[in-house]
Amino acid sequence: MTEKPHTVKSYEEQLQHLSNDLVIMGGNCELAFSNAIKAICKNDHALADDVINNDTVIDNFETQIEQEVVNLIALRQPMAIDLRETVTALKMSSDLERVGDLAKNIAKRTKLIKKKLPNELTESIERVGLLVQKQLKSVLDSYTNRSPDIAQDVWEKDEQVDDLTNNCMEEVIKYLKSDSENIEYGSHLLFVTKNIERIGDHLTNVAEQVYFLVNGTYLEGDRPKGSQSIVTGEK
Amino acid sequence: MTEKPHTVKSYEEQLQHLSNDLVIMGGNCELAFSNAIKAICKNDHALADDVINNDTVIDNFETQIEQEVVNLIALRQPMAIDLRETVTALKMSSDLERVGDLAKNIAKRTKLIKKKLPNELTESIERVGLLVQKQLKSVLDSYTNRSPDIAQDVWEKDEQVDDLTNNCMEEVIKYLKSDSENIEYGSHLLFVTKNIERIGDHLTNVAEQVYFLVNGTYLEGDRPKGSQSIVTGEK
Repeated sequence: MTEKPHTVKSYEEQLQHLSNDLVIMGGNCELAFSNAIKAICKNDHALADDVINNDTVIDNFETQIEQEVVNLIALRQPMAIDLRETVTALKMSSDLERVGDLAKNIAKRTKLIKKKLPNELTESIERVGLLVQKQLKSVLDSYTNRSPDIAQDVWEKDEQVDDLTNNCMEEVIKYLKSDSENIEYGSHLLFVTKNIERIGDHLTNVAEQVYFLVNGTYLEGDRPKGSQSIVTGEK
Repeated sequence: MTEKPHTVKSYEEQLQHLSNDLVIMGGNCELAFSNAIKAICKNDHALADDVINNDTVIDNFETQIEQEVVNLIALRQPMAIDLRETVTALKMSSDLERVGDLAKNIAKRTKLIKKKLPNELTESIERVGLLVQKQLKSVLDSYTNRSPDIAQDVWEKDEQVDDLTNNCMEEVIKYLKSDSENIEYGSHLLFVTKNIERIGDHLTNVAEQVYFLVNGTYLEGDRPKGSQSIVTGEK
């Protein structure tokens, strides 16, 4: 039997294509999330519209990646590391799609807020927003470089995200308590804060997937958790 | 070449086992969610503890199903409908695991509420809770019977879940506005209500997966959405 370099190359190309699509999808998530944070902090409704309108790009990537994965499994029957690559791509794309959805939801809530928020509140949102942007960048780097160390670092830093989310939640509660007129905007802000924390959780999922992809073993122990109450419903 | 009935049977058995595991996992989610709703409405902390402690059973099912799927793909190289069965199982188990998590979160928040809530509020939670329990039962039936019609029905009824969640959210806002002492419990109740709505969304995901599994085509059109504001951040 002769070697079939063309087919082999094409298989590798397919795997590379899948991986590239995930990285581009991740780049779109980075843009969506950083714009969503800018929009809520500056009450910028036009920027919020951008985030909302561009979410279909992220959704389409998920559908396309799923199709690529199914084709790869059906036609190439990948084994071992390649099988992990394909299954990981499916799971990662699902988490990244949720990151896009949550950014879109922040943007939608931004559009319902019609007045300037107190500085302490927007600064608090910005602080946790910046940390989560870093986490998103790092987890995409961990995937690009197939680095379990960067992945583990992201996973461990989620505790800091929880702590900053908790501070932010306290600011929102203060805002809610200060005036019963603030109840509706404040309720939206509770969900905005929760969405940021949920994005953080999706990023730790991705970190776990990258770790498993490279090492074939699971990150051990319970995920570190900051002290929280309103955020997670835990003491 | 001789037939290998043993291997063929064993492959079918593996697929059947996967399917059974999903159904049992779904049954555990039904119990967790109905107990979580009972616990919050009756302020029953012991029942809330049950829900919290039993969530590992649901988590373990997800891990086990993922392992079965990876083994099936690696060793059996499923094609066409069998490939859809395996990929669907992976996605369904991920949505069901989230249902379990959200029920657990409702239970955790229940434990932080130390007083009787107004009747209008608990009745409102119960109403949407019962509808979502029905949706959960139906979507599991649609999977067991491989019925795209039942799946489509669940998908369409999500609009009613949105409407009832919206009513419930209005009751919570009323509760929040009535007394600034209610802000913290009220914030937990906003998240409880949102969790119920999110469970509804996961069930429509499952409905879409079942539909695709049987028909090989996607449910068409935008998912019907009830009118909402605080719930989803939409006008």
